[in-house]
Amino acid sequence: MGINAPIGVFDSGVGGLTVAREIMRQIPDERMVYFGDTARLPYGTKSKETVIRYSKQIIRFLKTKQVKAIVVACNTATAQALEEIKNGLDIPVIGVIDAAARVASEVSRNGRIGVIGTTGTIESGMYEKALKEYNPQVQVYGKACPLLVSLVEEGWLHDSVTEEVVGRYMKDLEYKSIDTLILGCTHYPLLRSIFRKVAGEGVTLVNPAYETAMELSSLLDSERLRCGQDVEQAGRKYEFYVSDAAEKFCDFANSILPYDIEKVQQLNVECYEAD
Amino acid sequence: MGINAPIGVFDSGVGGLTVAREIMRQIPDERMVYFGDTARLPYGTKSKETVIRYSKQIIRFLKTKQVKAIVVACNTATAQALEEIKNGLDIPVIGVIDAAARVASEVSRNGRIGVIGTTGTIESGMYEKALKEYNPQVQVYGKACPLLVSLVEEGWLHDSVTEEVVGRYMKDLEYKSIDTLILGCTHYPLLRSIFRKVAGEGVTLVNPAYETAMELSSLLDSERLRCGQDVEQAGRKYEFYVSDAAEKFCDFANSILPYDIEKVQQLNVECYEAD
Repeated sequence: MGINAPIGVFDSGVGGLTVAREIMRQIPDERMVYFGDTARLPYGTKSKETVIRYSKQIIRFLKTKQVKAIVVACNTATAQALEEIKNGLDIPVIGVIDAAARVASEVSRNGRIGVIGTTGTIESGMYEKALKEYNPQVQVYGKACPLLVSLVEEGWLHDSVTEEVVGRYMKDLEYKSIDTLILGCTHYPLLRSIFRKVAGEGVTLVNPAYETAMELSSLLDSERLRCGQDVEQAGRKYEFYVSDAAEKFCDFANSILPYDIEKVQQLNVECYEAD
Repeated sequence: MGINAPIGVFDSGVGGLTVAREIMRQIPDERMVYFGDTARLPYGTKSKETVIRYSKQIIRFLKTKQVKAIVVACNTATAQALEEIKNGLDIPVIGVIDAAARVASEVSRNGRIGVIGTTGTIESGMYEKALKEYNPQVQVYGKACPLLVSLVEEGWLHDSVTEEVVGRYMKDLEYKSIDTLILGCTHYPLLRSIFRKVAGEGVTLVNPAYETAMELSSLLDSERLRCGQDVEQAGRKYEFYVSDAAEKFCDFANSILPYDIEKVQQLNVECYEAD
């Protein structure tokens, strides 16, 4: 393993592709191995204990690919499992919460910040904890939005039903006079235009996928892990693995990534259990 | 194992409780062990291969509870895995598709039958296959409705958004002049009033949960497996197991079952892998 090793990125399914997309855009020279746990998605409704077990299995798989750093590209897994994952790992690991919390705490003028995400992410309180570490004065208002992942996966990205559901969920936050909203689930950046419309111009949207790719870039510099190779063909540079339904993953990936994936490999991640 | 042994019932999560509820109503003397695979739900978007593997693990667990018969209380698992499950099992197994298909083929006057369910159930074509076995002349129109499970689990059972989504999905079927509609996902009976309203009085709704409990009752008679004990206290008669989030399961169960569950036990079903 060295500076030309790939970055490992994982998520419960397709959502983390919004993070992968930002990494491709911001640090295009890096290689990447992506794993989507499509056989066991979604993580958002599952317990902390289960999300930790699943995440550790995936990390064991990524280690077999000799990755030089790992991005937990899933808000739920970051909220529930990041601390446990870090223990005993000899490579850097970052989640999607910290950079977004730092930026949100910086851009908010009135200190009233909304966070939306899955039930697991919101109930964990991890965004609030991270935000208060950057600024103990902020008021944080969390709202679980369980239907939005299904709406994105149904492809209803610009739909009146989705707008109605977003409006329903946002009603609770409107009364709180937030001026900053963290899109705390990797699917939500795909609904950005609806959030922009419902939340109004006065609210700054923070996209953790974008901020995490920025943080990864800084980390590679500070740890002297930046890739030294020439840029390869995109098809050979990125590898995609899933635990189920490779074809469906491929279709979704090709609808949001800047190039077409040709190959997605399926594997049984349950085999990567601890010894 | 004998006539006083429990019936094993399993589902990917809470949906199968609509089947369990019908069994409790129709054959109240029987004991039951219910397993909900909440750590890996939903099954509806997963591949056949994965659904078979998960179902077989659950069957191995149910066998440890000495069940005398098994009900696959999940349309996706019935569609994808019932045939494979039956192989090598020495106790009767029924799914939720066959009885519903028989009844639908009998009640339809114009032979035009709609089936709604998860993507996995609809793509499997198993309802169409079963319907045509009972009456080769029927025309079957399937429609996958992926959002409805999320809406039920969010608790939006009598909601304008749910009505709009149901209306959207039903539009395709309206043009087909169906006179019978199979609610081919165990969550859907909980949306019965919305389906009744959207589909109109001219369409007969077939509820596989109800028909399956009827079929189970006949099966216990024909196999001489009917329970011979006196009725016990409900709390001791039914056992509930899940692979994750026992408390949330308990809340949902108590909202739809005729009595309150006190205890739901959590276990790691991945351990029940084949030797």
